[in-house]
Amino acid sequence: MRNVLALVYKCSVFSKYRPIISKQVRFSHDQQWGSNKLHRKIKIPNPLREIIMADPKVEEILAPLRALVKEQGDLVRKLKEEKAPEIDIKKAVAELKTRKKILEDKELSLAPSEELFDRAKMEDLIKRRFFYDQSFAIYGGITGQFDFGPMGCALKSNMIQLWRKHFILQEQMLEVDCSILTPEPVLKASGHVERFADLMTKDVKSGECFRLDHLIKAHLEKIKCEKNTTADLKAEIEDILVKLDGMTAAEMEALMKRFQMKSPISGNELTPPIEFNLMFNTQIGPSGLVKGFLRPETAQGIFVNFKRLLEFNQGRLPFAAAQIGNSFRNEISPRSGLLRVREFTMCEIEHFCDTKDHPKFESVKDTQMLFYSANNQEQGKPAEIMTIGDAVSKGIVNNETLGYFMARIHLYMLAVGIDLKKLRFRQHMGNEMAHYACDCWDAECLTSYGWIECVGCADRSAYDLTQHTKATGTRLAAEKKLPAPKQIEVVEALPNKAAIGKEFKKDAKVINDELAAMDSTALEGLQAKLESDGEYVLSTPNGDFKLTPKLVTVKKSQKTVHVEEIIPSVIEPSFGVGRILYSILEQNFKMRDGDEQRTYFALPAAVAPMKCAVLPLSGNAEFQPFVRELSQELTNVDVSHKVDDSSGSIGRRYARTDELGVPYAITVDFDTMKEPHSVTLRERDSMGQVRLPLSDVPVVVRDLANSKISWANVEQKYPKFEQQENVKGAAA
Amino acid sequence: MRNVLALVYKCSVFSKYRPIISKQVRFSHDQQWGSNKLHRKIKIPNPLREIIMADPKVEEILAPLRALVKEQGDLVRKLKEEKAPEIDIKKAVAELKTRKKILEDKELSLAPSEELFDRAKMEDLIKRRFFYDQSFAIYGGITGQFDFGPMGCALKSNMIQLWRKHFILQEQMLEVDCSILTPEPVLKASGHVERFADLMTKDVKSGECFRLDHLIKAHLEKIKCEKNTTADLKAEIEDILVKLDGMTAAEMEALMKRFQMKSPISGNELTPPIEFNLMFNTQIGPSGLVKGFLRPETAQGIFVNFKRLLEFNQGRLPFAAAQIGNSFRNEISPRSGLLRVREFTMCEIEHFCDTKDHPKFESVKDTQMLFYSANNQEQGKPAEIMTIGDAVSKGIVNNETLGYFMARIHLYMLAVGIDLKKLRFRQHMGNEMAHYACDCWDAECLTSYGWIECVGCADRSAYDLTQHTKATGTRLAAEKKLPAPKQIEVVEALPNKAAIGKEFKKDAKVINDELAAMDSTALEGLQAKLESDGEYVLSTPNGDFKLTPKLVTVKKSQKTVHVEEIIPSVIEPSFGVGRILYSILEQNFKMRDGDEQRTYFALPAAVAPMKCAVLPLSGNAEFQPFVRELSQELTNVDVSHKVDDSSGSIGRRYARTDELGVPYAITVDFDTMKEPHSVTLRERDSMGQVRLPLSDVPVVVRDLANSKISWANVEQKYPKFEQQENVKGAAA
Repeated sequence: MRNVLALVYKCSVFSKYRPIISKQVRFSHDQQWGSNKLHRKIKIPNPLREIIMADPKVEEILAPLRALVKEQGDLVRKLKEEKAPEIDIKKAVAELKTRKKILEDKELSLAPSEELFDRAKMEDLIKRRFFYDQSFAIYGGITGQFDFGPMGCALKSNMIQLWRKHFILQEQMLEVDCSILTPEPVLKASGHVERFADLMTKDVKSGECFRLDHLIKAHLEKIKCEKNTTADLKAEIEDILVKLDGMTAAEMEALMKRFQMKSPISGNELTPPIEFNLMFNTQIGPSGLVKGFLRPETAQGIFVNFKRLLEFNQGRLPFAAAQIGNSFRNEISPRSGLLRVREFTMCEIEHFCDTKDHPKFESVKDTQMLFYSANNQEQGKPAEIMTIGDAVSKGIVNNETLGYFMARIHLYMLAVGIDLKKLRFRQHMGNEMAHYACDCWDAECLTSYGWIECVGCADRSAYDLTQHTKATGTRLAAEKKLPAPKQIEVVEALPNKAAIGKEFKKDAKVINDELAAMDSTALEGLQAKLESDGEYVLSTPNGDFKLTPKLVTVKKSQKTVHVEEIIPSVIEPSFGVGRILYSILEQNFKMRDGDEQRTYFALPAAVAPMKCAVLPLSGNAEFQPFVRELSQELTNVDVSHKVDDSSGSIGRRYARTDELGVPYAITVDFDTMKEPHSVTLRERDSMGQVRLPLSDVPVVVRDLANSKISWANVEQKYPKFEQQENVKGAAA
Repeated sequence: MRNVLALVYKCSVFSKYRPIISKQVRFSHDQQWGSNKLHRKIKIPNPLREIIMADPKVEEILAPLRALVKEQGDLVRKLKEEKAPEIDIKKAVAELKTRKKILEDKELSLAPSEELFDRAKMEDLIKRRFFYDQSFAIYGGITGQFDFGPMGCALKSNMIQLWRKHFILQEQMLEVDCSILTPEPVLKASGHVERFADLMTKDVKSGECFRLDHLIKAHLEKIKCEKNTTADLKAEIEDILVKLDGMTAAEMEALMKRFQMKSPISGNELTPPIEFNLMFNTQIGPSGLVKGFLRPETAQGIFVNFKRLLEFNQGRLPFAAAQIGNSFRNEISPRSGLLRVREFTMCEIEHFCDTKDHPKFESVKDTQMLFYSANNQEQGKPAEIMTIGDAVSKGIVNNETLGYFMARIHLYMLAVGIDLKKLRFRQHMGNEMAHYACDCWDAECLTSYGWIECVGCADRSAYDLTQHTKATGTRLAAEKKLPAPKQIEVVEALPNKAAIGKEFKKDAKVINDELAAMDSTALEGLQAKLESDGEYVLSTPNGDFKLTPKLVTVKKSQKTVHVEEIIPSVIEPSFGVGRILYSILEQNFKMRDGDEQRTYFALPAAVAPMKCAVLPLSGNAEFQPFVRELSQELTNVDVSHKVDDSSGSIGRRYARTDELGVPYAITVDFDTMKEPHSVTLRERDSMGQVRLPLSDVPVVVRDLANSKISWANVEQKYPKFEQQENVKGAAA
């Protein structure tokens, strides 16, 4: 069971939203913001490389590395087929991962650099314009917690509204809103209480905590590099490092002792390994006896409501439930800004189904996506572009339902502003996959931290419903009508309750319960024993009891059934809102040509914090009535906007709205006061401007914001407004 | 300080969202759902009584009760004017409250009953159609926690979206989204750590918990009623009951001992009083050293971000920030369904301002509202209807800004479906008011639980910003430009740092800090002492130090200032979403005339969980393409809907959509297949139907849902569709 659960967590829970952090930042300390001087400018590789024909020269360099990966991938496969000892497979897999990493690093380093990305500059803008910032900063702040300011909050809220439309409304999903505080038994059943933990060790004096595997690895790697380390020891350390991932606490403790590990910071002694559960715990109610946790994922709230939801859906499958809400994980060392935090918003879907075909698959099958299949990973091949229809028909993606959701995820990511070329679907490899999963894909976004897992899309099979059924005795199952009625044989124990009561008194109930719980195989054993020996010894929690044919008989009968009970499979697309938000910001962070100081976010209007800015050219009082009326008209057509009537040149204020990612700006100037009243409308990315009637502008901006019309349409319809924007040094 | 804080909590935090529970339910045990057999049918009084001319007969009965309230109200006022001892005022106030309660109960009992409300029936519907239900029910459930199912979740989400439009978008507020996990120092500064607590006592054997004041009160009231209790003891008990509210833990413990109180359930011994803080606590991070709480209100997240928000607003006042999110309170005994829960969604606004006039007050001043002023409460008079403009000009409502928000709250409540006649604004009385508040009004909704506080609207003054400034040393203040530059005198200590360092060594820093922190009065004292005695003894945390004119001098100078620093006032409208949602459901729960079994929610389209249902008349396969296309068209115009193609008569399915509160239903029938294609459209409340072209229906329903057109418009435009709806026994 432990091994099975270990696998579950490897892919489905524990690893969910743990980013693939690129080497550069992995060992920097307590990087609340993830930035440090070392990577002020980061080379973002051009992922088109993976789509377009590879450069033959680059391929020449990569070929031997690809071959090494393939060789090892083949070995892993062979060992698995031969059912080789687990430790051998584990070693081979570790080696495969190492070779994959070398290949990937080389690929990234050889890729033509698309642009220089300045993370420090972007983070400065994010803080300065309060997209988000560290929580409780005036009290010194807490790592891994962020407050979203007006712009970040609006961006997040727009992303969520779009998600609701794109998934819940389009698919008529059942949205629920469940409790965050969760009593212990629920999370025991789901496996979180036992397994949702990291091992750590503490400095006995300062109390400072370290993740144990990180600490051991760093310590051993240091020894390995020392001059006087023997070749034998080096080889042994390599072997330990390979096995580290699967070691028990006791094995790790032995290593700590053997290599005399101390705190790398203070040199103090360290405690023995401590299993640190990543859930925040508390007590519910005043007695202090009801232990509870803050939920680590929203999914469990849906599973425990399965019966109500099935009933709401009138007993029919398939249906999908969805939930948007906060989850909590007490990370040992939060880092990398929004990528690893203690409190985060998730959007999760649980699609319950009995078959894996999908009626709407046809509508998405031509969607082109970038697939990085397990096979390609194992064979050292790059990701490939193809349609989801092809991916399913070739068996690369397991089934239509999974494929349908992957395509929908892909379309959502593009709609919120993720770059098509910086989005890939990476399949979990066989050795990463949970025991129950048929298939599992992560939507990953390319950022300066590397490829970041932003959405998981897994087939969780019947795992969770089965676990909660076991724990509660409430059958979380659906009934499916059989194509034709079926005769089945029913075997049941018929206890003589009066006689049992008389003979066993207070134990009678336990005996009757035990008999009622026997399955058909057990019952046949019972019958056989009664017939052969004239008695049967029944084991119960109260001890063993001897039963005779007078006390119990076994009855077989035929029954006609019209339905069969099935525990549905679950396909789970699970979105980390903060990670997507960060990826959107990074991928849309731009500098104006020739002016590094003038930066902005080229956010799509659908998610931009505000749709437009209203700017009076100057503080002239005569502009005010126009500004006020325009603002009211924009509100009437539900266009969120900001009036910026602060002092400062118009160029400076354009620069400010650009920084906020606002796509359109309306300027009220002296010509506005003349009849017919007109204003200028400016588009952020092109900085193009048109002149249009004041009365047209609210509806035009609304239609632009809803993508009903494009900027090109607007430029076609209205005359261009030519005026040099003061670009240089405008940001303030 | 303690008394001051006690007052703070009385009105602003502790009492916020504690409902006024009517007598009937106050002592029922562990009513997760608040219902029991006793009040299956509850008489809802007709609040119109308070608006229309009172019935002279009723007034005749009430007159002596009104007089008694007035007499006592006058006494309280007189005692306050005379600055009588606090205990006398307290006694007089307790008596005033008792008299008010008697009057109110009598009023309610004499009011003509509008309708019989069947709470059990409504709760059955709420559970059956999964609007919401107890969380983790398959695990036995947890009191005070609810999961919102698809209908409750959609209703809640629509209420919140409307709130966002009505407040944030309309007023261009700054929305933020802050952390739920809050470190201890923040909540120490706000006063929650010290004072956000109830006293309780535990059964030493079973661990069962009791709220101490409730327990003592029940125990003493029992003794009072016993036959052999002397008149002296009765009088003493009455005196104790009056004082109970203000007693310390030690005083209460003495009472427990004196009257030998035991557990009323088991008769076991009880523990001494335990101060039970209502915040859920946990540890942040792996060390276990950083204590944190789940926030008990969202407001503090806004206050700690004040500087960033002010900067975002370019340093200018006034501005409002808003936050929508969950808060948590570990209630000792949650009850009454959604009214007192452990986890709840709040929408809070903090409007920061330096003056109390409001530029948009004009736009709301004619709004008619029901005011229950402190004066009327004290004088035994009923609530009065008047415009907010009159209420402000008469001084009943303190200022325009408060009045503006009250009117906006009123309009929001009507928009989400609260009955105008069941909504009142009740002013806190002088003795309920926090020391800092100029004025404080609660929007209360009338339900079967009595008048329930759903929105608080308080003037919090500069209290919170001042507290956080004190705790952090970060000045949470704004700068205001003076009408003209001002000359001010600056007094400062000029320490001779070198000499101080030499003389006091390691204490030099403390001494310099202490000197820098002295205000002008203290500095003048320092100067006087130095001049008269030639020395000054400075008290510091490190002890006292003798300073001479060689070590420190005092300098006075003139300075021209252009701005003054002000700590803004805060007006705080604070909405309890669950309470409003419950009130909406209760006030809109209806039965069809002549069919008690057929119940429904007459929810306004703006908040209804779905805007329409699409119903094929039967399972005929030829209907399917029309249903599918219609569903797609509705999705395209963002109309949330449900296709109900389950078996069951059309009447039965209408009844089901009525139960869900869906305002419109579209039926596809055999005539739909004929050209020109047409469908029927049915309105829930009137059950009226029209026939209209299939292609018209998506836009018509969208416009109905957005209140762009009314049902009367639709009936005018399209022919009536007459067909008897099978009403009897249709609900299933």
